[in-house]
Amino acid sequence: MKNQDGLSRRARWAGGETIASVLMARTLAQPELISLAAGFVDSETLPIESTQKAFDAIWSDPARAKAALQYGTTIGYPLLREAVLQRTVQADGTTAEQLNVSPEQVVITAGSNQLLFLVSDTLLDPGDVVICGAPSYFVYMGTLGNLGVRAVGVEIDQHGMIPEAVDESLTRFEAAGELGRVKAIYATTYYDNPSGVSIPAERRAALVELAKRWSRNGKIYLVEDAAYRELRYYGDDIPSLWSFDPTGEVVIHAGTFSKSFSPGIRVGWGILPQTLVEPVLAQKGNLDFGSPNINQLLMATVLEQGFFDVHVQRLRESYRKKLDAMFSAADEFLAGIDGVDWVRPTGGLYVWLRLPDGIDTGFSGALFDRAVDEGVLYVPGEYCYPPNVPKLTKNMLRLSFGVQSCDSIRRGVELLGRAIREVL
Amino acid sequence: MKNQDGLSRRARWAGGETIASVLMARTLAQPELISLAAGFVDSETLPIESTQKAFDAIWSDPARAKAALQYGTTIGYPLLREAVLQRTVQADGTTAEQLNVSPEQVVITAGSNQLLFLVSDTLLDPGDVVICGAPSYFVYMGTLGNLGVRAVGVEIDQHGMIPEAVDESLTRFEAAGELGRVKAIYATTYYDNPSGVSIPAERRAALVELAKRWSRNGKIYLVEDAAYRELRYYGDDIPSLWSFDPTGEVVIHAGTFSKSFSPGIRVGWGILPQTLVEPVLAQKGNLDFGSPNINQLLMATVLEQGFFDVHVQRLRESYRKKLDAMFSAADEFLAGIDGVDWVRPTGGLYVWLRLPDGIDTGFSGALFDRAVDEGVLYVPGEYCYPPNVPKLTKNMLRLSFGVQSCDSIRRGVELLGRAIREVL
Repeated sequence: MKNQDGLSRRARWAGGETIASVLMARTLAQPELISLAAGFVDSETLPIESTQKAFDAIWSDPARAKAALQYGTTIGYPLLREAVLQRTVQADGTTAEQLNVSPEQVVITAGSNQLLFLVSDTLLDPGDVVICGAPSYFVYMGTLGNLGVRAVGVEIDQHGMIPEAVDESLTRFEAAGELGRVKAIYATTYYDNPSGVSIPAERRAALVELAKRWSRNGKIYLVEDAAYRELRYYGDDIPSLWSFDPTGEVVIHAGTFSKSFSPGIRVGWGILPQTLVEPVLAQKGNLDFGSPNINQLLMATVLEQGFFDVHVQRLRESYRKKLDAMFSAADEFLAGIDGVDWVRPTGGLYVWLRLPDGIDTGFSGALFDRAVDEGVLYVPGEYCYPPNVPKLTKNMLRLSFGVQSCDSIRRGVELLGRAIREVL
Repeated sequence: MKNQDGLSRRARWAGGETIASVLMARTLAQPELISLAAGFVDSETLPIESTQKAFDAIWSDPARAKAALQYGTTIGYPLLREAVLQRTVQADGTTAEQLNVSPEQVVITAGSNQLLFLVSDTLLDPGDVVICGAPSYFVYMGTLGNLGVRAVGVEIDQHGMIPEAVDESLTRFEAAGELGRVKAIYATTYYDNPSGVSIPAERRAALVELAKRWSRNGKIYLVEDAAYRELRYYGDDIPSLWSFDPTGEVVIHAGTFSKSFSPGIRVGWGILPQTLVEPVLAQKGNLDFGSPNINQLLMATVLEQGFFDVHVQRLRESYRKKLDAMFSAADEFLAGIDGVDWVRPTGGLYVWLRLPDGIDTGFSGALFDRAVDEGVLYVPGEYCYPPNVPKLTKNMLRLSFGVQSCDSIRRGVELLGRAIREVL
């Protein structure tokens, strides 16, 4: 950003060009590039027919048609909130009664991103701390930066966030007299962006216990980003972090239909502790006055008519093939390179790749331009870390298998392998 | 709000129950009430058929269908941004070339409300000042409060914001050494909410001149809220405030399809000075990552196929009848009461009514409960003023003729007249 005169503190904190825009510029400049960078969903599997049918159902019901085009409430369309809650508790193997939770704690937002923003805006003042994995979802790191909040990264492993590492971080804040500034712990619990890993049940329980135990100088919330939960290709579903907090004290659960159905419809939600509902709605009221009713009625109808489950099934089959394509290519073209390593995810859209020490994957490192010359694009790992990580790992990168065809995935990995060998 | 522990400063500034929720509770408790309070649009004229046809056009074009369901860009769908700009310059009797403006300065938002929020968040720090009319659009007053911003009201008359009053206010801020804190002047330029009045061309020119002249300790923007521009029932259109700033320096123009087409689709926009585009987009990126593409493609198609113009024509005829119904009822039931007075608007949805001195229209005054007992609901005028107005006028109220039928409008005004006579 060139001229910041007259801008608010927030606007100045928002920083400059995003990674997304740098990558997009590269793609536009060289359209034949195989982008394994974008976290978009696959255009070929977008639910055109289901959406069309759901709209037909809406137009054939005059009351619903009118409601779709009229103002709604800030909290969102009741039938959708009920359906979201019902599906969540069912997937968690429990009931709304057991968890003592009601649809009045479900807030509909413009994607899960807006829920993350609203909750952050409601809880965090400049200088406050959010503990997150290193690496973490980079868009949310940007949001925290925009709020003047300190995102503090802790180590993760093949099972995601490590409770002991969080505990150590909290101990350090307490020792520094700053425990009261730690307001939340953020984790993508299913098929993390960028690491691809999920947090197992026992760690979920430990994280909830930990958040409660440390909530002594003010509450420390656990923000669960479950954006990729439905994108499961192997193995069983895991009960949500939220379900490990049956008294509804510390976990804020964020979900979305953007990945599992359509990002163009952009409907997400939060399930909130009772006390946060009113303040979050006050923020949302000021911000956009409620999400568009037509999108909410559409998703309520898509769920009601059973289109959603059919679509998710189809999506899983399609992405499973792409995941397999990426790993057979990785076995073929990358496994032979000394120092290249990865954890194979069982869902989601991302693979987090470790390259040999000494390779710098960044925009100004040797590999990035080499890879682009070969014809493949990736996300440099360093952009996925919260700021001020003590020792920034420069040899990581993120690949996505969401957008490209199986053939292009194979070709892209092959080109990446070639680029890596060239810079070694 | 009961418990504010652990909330951010912003969340605490957001305040408690809104006027809207108080009024809604009254309506729910007594459903036979005739609400002349809600600023909703008329459910009977919602464009169900046009929306359906526009979607049919989208589904029949595979590229457009995919785009509708895929991620878009933060700034918004190009064809929609072009169409919005084209329509605006055309209505203003000019061209994009003459104003040296491009679609890259048009940002699509979730209604004009979100544009107002984004611009405010981008420009304003806590303690900064926005000058606005007294009265003004109460939702935006809430947004400013939420940001910790001082909304400072200046007198308005039957032609809206008075440039001399703005000039005096700025002179006072300069004398107090606070001119640098004044960042914007906000006005609803067409059929104001709540006053119903529009600002004539010569005042628009004067306001632009004034904003430029006072932009010496930092820029003072003019935020033009043109939400009701299309709802014109009598008289000619007026060129926008924005068109009086041909060098694109100080005016931020906000528009929306919520009132003119459908609030459930919730597509609005801003046309911004070049330098503000990037910072506003940075905020929007953090907030929701771009508005839903499906809604943007829908509105682009609605415009392209000519459905919008047909709908606006129909809407004008319908609302014109309602406006007429309200004023023939006002002539019959209110004109005879000494001290009752109003300015008859030529568009929009609102009428701003002055009652005899000494009548308190507020929730705790005598009139409100009397009116509810009679069976009619209005918005107490005091809620439409920015905070800290030196002498708060208690005898004003806002009526809306948007939602009710002509018969109910007549009956509602009759009941209001009865309630006023009773408390006199």
